[in-house]
Amino acid sequence: MRLVRLGPVGQEIPAVRSDGGHRDLRPLLGGREGRFGGDIGPAFFAGGGIDRIDQAVEEGSLPCLEGAEELRTGAPIARPGKIICVGLNYRDHAAETGAQIPGEPVVFMKDPSTVVGPYDTVLIPRHSHKTDWEVELGVVVGTTARYLPSPAQARAHVAGYVLSHDVSEREFQLERGGQWDKGKSCETFNPLGPELVTADEVPDPQNLRLSLSVNGVKRQDGTTADMIFSVDHVLWYLSQFMVLQPGDLINTGTPAGVALGLPGTPYLRAGDVVELEISSLGTARQTFKEAS
Amino acid sequence: MRLVRLGPVGQEIPAVRSDGGHRDLRPLLGGREGRFGGDIGPAFFAGGGIDRIDQAVEEGSLPCLEGAEELRTGAPIARPGKIICVGLNYRDHAAETGAQIPGEPVVFMKDPSTVVGPYDTVLIPRHSHKTDWEVELGVVVGTTARYLPSPAQARAHVAGYVLSHDVSEREFQLERGGQWDKGKSCETFNPLGPELVTADEVPDPQNLRLSLSVNGVKRQDGTTADMIFSVDHVLWYLSQFMVLQPGDLINTGTPAGVALGLPGTPYLRAGDVVELEISSLGTARQTFKEAS
Repeated sequence: MRLVRLGPVGQEIPAVRSDGGHRDLRPLLGGREGRFGGDIGPAFFAGGGIDRIDQAVEEGSLPCLEGAEELRTGAPIARPGKIICVGLNYRDHAAETGAQIPGEPVVFMKDPSTVVGPYDTVLIPRHSHKTDWEVELGVVVGTTARYLPSPAQARAHVAGYVLSHDVSEREFQLERGGQWDKGKSCETFNPLGPELVTADEVPDPQNLRLSLSVNGVKRQDGTTADMIFSVDHVLWYLSQFMVLQPGDLINTGTPAGVALGLPGTPYLRAGDVVELEISSLGTARQTFKEAS
Repeated sequence: MRLVRLGPVGQEIPAVRSDGGHRDLRPLLGGREGRFGGDIGPAFFAGGGIDRIDQAVEEGSLPCLEGAEELRTGAPIARPGKIICVGLNYRDHAAETGAQIPGEPVVFMKDPSTVVGPYDTVLIPRHSHKTDWEVELGVVVGTTARYLPSPAQARAHVAGYVLSHDVSEREFQLERGGQWDKGKSCETFNPLGPELVTADEVPDPQNLRLSLSVNGVKRQDGTTADMIFSVDHVLWYLSQFMVLQPGDLINTGTPAGVALGLPGTPYLRAGDVVELEISSLGTARQTFKEAS
């Protein structure tokens, strides 16, 4: 299934998309007090929302969402409880940044309020000179995972996959005090979507093509087959240090081709247009502008 | 005012504490769909909940919460949208860890789901040998703050102050891949409370005594007067990099005396009891046990 959230910021309508159009999930998800929390968020995943929709789709009991095509596409999940990111998880990207290949996953976090829709405007922070791009496979957690015994158990905890843009300010990240989160948590820095593709539709998350272009020039073109630590390994690993909760988002790292590693370091400027794609997960497109 | 949340995990009752006992805030805060979101959380702060309670206390319109003394004390705020931490913000602590005095705040994050009550059990993670303590002044954000023009504007965005324990696993933090979040986000690693003391009752947050003892031995004994970067500076600074949202928690750093800096590095073991105090903000006490 392909889950989306459509409508103005803060008023997104949860829906399921199929070839036959969009189906409205509001009647099924109920209000904030209900079992599913009224949205595609932590309570939805914890309450078995995906199975419930599956069943409703089978029964044909979901109403059409009329006029879906004219609505803004929001992020396909409501604000995650946390965003965990893996750094330097592709060999070619580690090399281009001058970093060593890590012996175990490098883990940092991003402010969950940075999530915006896949076609929303992204703000270049005030006083930023080094705003950079990073196309990433995003993994959404479906069920609580703590101390998983091995990577083999990880897949059962994945709700689905999503195209994620881990926008990064390299000066804030690398030259302003040793920890990276400061350069990862700026306003609008995590465009997400267009769709949450449920895990059953992505049999092999290690065989997805990721690409990104800036103003029509291809900058990143990689495959998740080149990850140093696989999705399963990352989830297993993270679960040894923290509790993964339903609705959490994990950004699994970016392949080579970011501005930091390119000749002339062509960081993003106001007016630049970034287009992203991951095979099976769709496309996204963001215009950058200066934060006012 | 002193705001508390009392009752079993996940069913805490929001209340205000005064010399005359506890008043029940449930009738005033309404349900999750309402203006205040039904709890002392982001919607409560964004919706002007503190002013509304102030008014209700004046009017004497809040009902008593009977039997409050027998209830568990939860964290005084519902799960924050994010937890931002400032590292090495006291000279003596920077020195004991062998770090240089930072030229600007070192910023990292903690999983918001680590928040537990001030008397709850704290879990030593599996395979941990270096679980450490850190008493900290916690600042709760009341209103949205982005690009504050100067530290002088910061105070207006503070809802209140709270005793916070930034529990840390030093091996996970410092020896496992370069970024600190992994050693800060383990399950139960942010005991919080007992009370959220509103900003009007803490005229000078730079004049609070913080102390911590382990099994009755005093280990930390400092004052917020020794912060390198003041509360006002920290909020102003953070607002240049990210948007501070109502209900966010900021842990402002710890003074000297952590296990990492002590002779023999006496890290926490199962059965150890940690007692914390910040003047005006109350006391807390946690027993540590092995994660099962």
